[in-house]
Amino acid sequence: MADPGRLERLERRVRELEEELARERRGRGAARARIDTMSPEVTDSNPYSRLMALKRMGIVKDYEKIRTFTVAVVGVGGVGSVTAEMLTRCGIGKLLLFDYDKVELANMNRLFFQPHQAGLSKVQAAEHTLRDINPDVQFEVHNYNITTLDNFEHFMDRISNGALEEGKPVDLVLSCVDNFEARMAINTACNELGQIWMESGVSENAVSGHIQLIIPGESACFACAPPLVVAANIDEKTLKREGVCAASLPTTMGVVAGMLVQNVLKYLLNFGTVSYYLGYNAMQDFFPTMSMKPNPQCSDHNCRKQQENYKKKEAARPKEEVIEKEEEIVHEENDWGIELVSEISEDELKAASGPVPELPEGISVAYTIPDKEDNLITGETVADSEESLEELMAKMRNM
Amino acid sequence: MADPGRLERLERRVRELEEELARERRGRGAARARIDTMSPEVTDSNPYSRLMALKRMGIVKDYEKIRTFTVAVVGVGGVGSVTAEMLTRCGIGKLLLFDYDKVELANMNRLFFQPHQAGLSKVQAAEHTLRDINPDVQFEVHNYNITTLDNFEHFMDRISNGALEEGKPVDLVLSCVDNFEARMAINTACNELGQIWMESGVSENAVSGHIQLIIPGESACFACAPPLVVAANIDEKTLKREGVCAASLPTTMGVVAGMLVQNVLKYLLNFGTVSYYLGYNAMQDFFPTMSMKPNPQCSDHNCRKQQENYKKKEAARPKEEVIEKEEEIVHEENDWGIELVSEISEDELKAASGPVPELPEGISVAYTIPDKEDNLITGETVADSEESLEELMAKMRNM
Repeated sequence: MADPGRLERLERRVRELEEELARERRGRGAARARIDTMSPEVTDSNPYSRLMALKRMGIVKDYEKIRTFTVAVVGVGGVGSVTAEMLTRCGIGKLLLFDYDKVELANMNRLFFQPHQAGLSKVQAAEHTLRDINPDVQFEVHNYNITTLDNFEHFMDRISNGALEEGKPVDLVLSCVDNFEARMAINTACNELGQIWMESGVSENAVSGHIQLIIPGESACFACAPPLVVAANIDEKTLKREGVCAASLPTTMGVVAGMLVQNVLKYLLNFGTVSYYLGYNAMQDFFPTMSMKPNPQCSDHNCRKQQENYKKKEAARPKEEVIEKEEEIVHEENDWGIELVSEISEDELKAASGPVPELPEGISVAYTIPDKEDNLITGETVADSEESLEELMAKMRNM
Repeated sequence: MADPGRLERLERRVRELEEELARERRGRGAARARIDTMSPEVTDSNPYSRLMALKRMGIVKDYEKIRTFTVAVVGVGGVGSVTAEMLTRCGIGKLLLFDYDKVELANMNRLFFQPHQAGLSKVQAAEHTLRDINPDVQFEVHNYNITTLDNFEHFMDRISNGALEEGKPVDLVLSCVDNFEARMAINTACNELGQIWMESGVSENAVSGHIQLIIPGESACFACAPPLVVAANIDEKTLKREGVCAASLPTTMGVVAGMLVQNVLKYLLNFGTVSYYLGYNAMQDFFPTMSMKPNPQCSDHNCRKQQENYKKKEAARPKEEVIEKEEEIVHEENDWGIELVSEISEDELKAASGPVPELPEGISVAYTIPDKEDNLITGETVADSEESLEELMAKMRNM
């Protein structure tokens, strides 16, 4: 042979490179071993000590239970990525992530993704970072658009069967998407499955946002009424898009993700008051809350079915068990217009809008649906709660 | 030869490993070049497009101005690290970071730091991550405790001279520390320098927090009145610490950091309403706001001096320029009791508390100062009482 030492040198080089790569990956990789049981022990090396302290502080009875829950996060953008990171750091049992987008440098004005991840799929980049942060969490990621027919089927299947124990449904679905179609897909799936979910959103001018808890049959779904948004209090004309990109801020998205995951923790771990709707107006630092009953004429037949089930369940419940509910706001009719408030002029809004639900100060509908003559259904209405609405408003004046 | 394909396979393996290693190393470094001018161009590769869109949306007049500002972040923990990351992603001109702590696995329940950084100093680890995220930002980090005499001098010097243009003062100081002593040090420095700053805090039970804007002479400083906190609405007894670690949540800290940096952006870029005080009660999703005038008998003589300066400035201002202020709450006297509300029983509170300022629902004082017979009227109460101050400091350790 021309070069008798070549084979040995190559073998040595392979060993060197393998070691170097391992060292490099150790540096970036999961620098902590898995932990079998959450311990309250107060040591520098215990990543759960500050969470388990919530028990000692009397906030959460059984923090360890967090490990038994599975949450699906749909949309891993400015809100979804931070949401997934918070849940991962809290030690959630399993996370399912859905997104079809790639990381771009244009995303760097929000938390979580890093420039070197540009070009990777969001779910792949997120899984890698999150696994390093907490190897105790199980991850299942799906790099697809849930709104196409095949993917929607698969999405429904994973929501129904993707819990820690395969075959069981997830505990919660979180909508962190940025478009109407995807929200409607999640709404449709959750109504059909009776799956409790939370919705989140940030306005395209970057200075308002909201979260919403939707319990099929019990609270208004996304099709019951136009989605509610925090009124931006900003000149509509300036908001007219020129077919260009929306603004976004890491602050607003961080606050919305924080409010969302806080609501998730309160819901799963049973502490504090779980909010049905919490808005964020960044210009005024105003945070309206409210809740809304489902619409008996909802266009989604699965929502109507869930409402029937809920009524039956409520009727069957012994009287003393009935806990007093928060004041709820009921909408009058269901023929809303369908335009993005933040995108239309005041004139357009006046022309387009049918009846709009009475809402507390600071909350507005994202869309209105034009009046349809053939659809002036007898509203099973508003009802009984004019007083409580006033009460609610009074309460909100202090906020 | 026994295995004729071996050489080729080894050569291929070396090439693969080299590529993988290069990819791995690219992955850790700053994967984007510096950008000289912020452009509104809407492309996937423009990290500022979504921020510059704030101009087109009519929210901010001159977003590029962000690059001219210098902000000092004191404390790079659960709130400070996220604060620094948000400012970095927003493209702030220069960041000064102060902290003397090391990253520990016990910090992994909050955003930002990663397990592989355990053992590094917080400022060093933060600088590395932040530089990768945005190489356009200038960083200056100080790995020391600002409360020791020498360091305090140096801290004052950097606040006075550490702006982008050396010799000019920073535009804003952000207090993201977790103890009373450090807050008092920042307060003392800012009163002396007439430096505007914002304070932030999270309760040791992890479910409330606040931010506060302090303009020396114009709004109450940290020594004017007991620091205000969001009333936790939680059984006091459960809060009795056993000398152990405080609880913390990535949600609460993320929300507080988001509120803080949002207030910074509004203040620096002149949009929306800048909040003097914004609280966060996570249990009820309640966000009280207020403002408070400075105490004419403040124990800090530099605060009193700044108050005089402010009065003169106000008096010299033409009448029509006087803008109507938000309702302000004025405290009645300045001899407050000196106990941590969240740590004392109701009985203890009743026994200890002197007069307390009138505060809106949901806001409380962090501690009260016991009445002292020999010191009822003359202003200089708080600072004089070595004993109480020590006690206070001990109690505020974990706030």
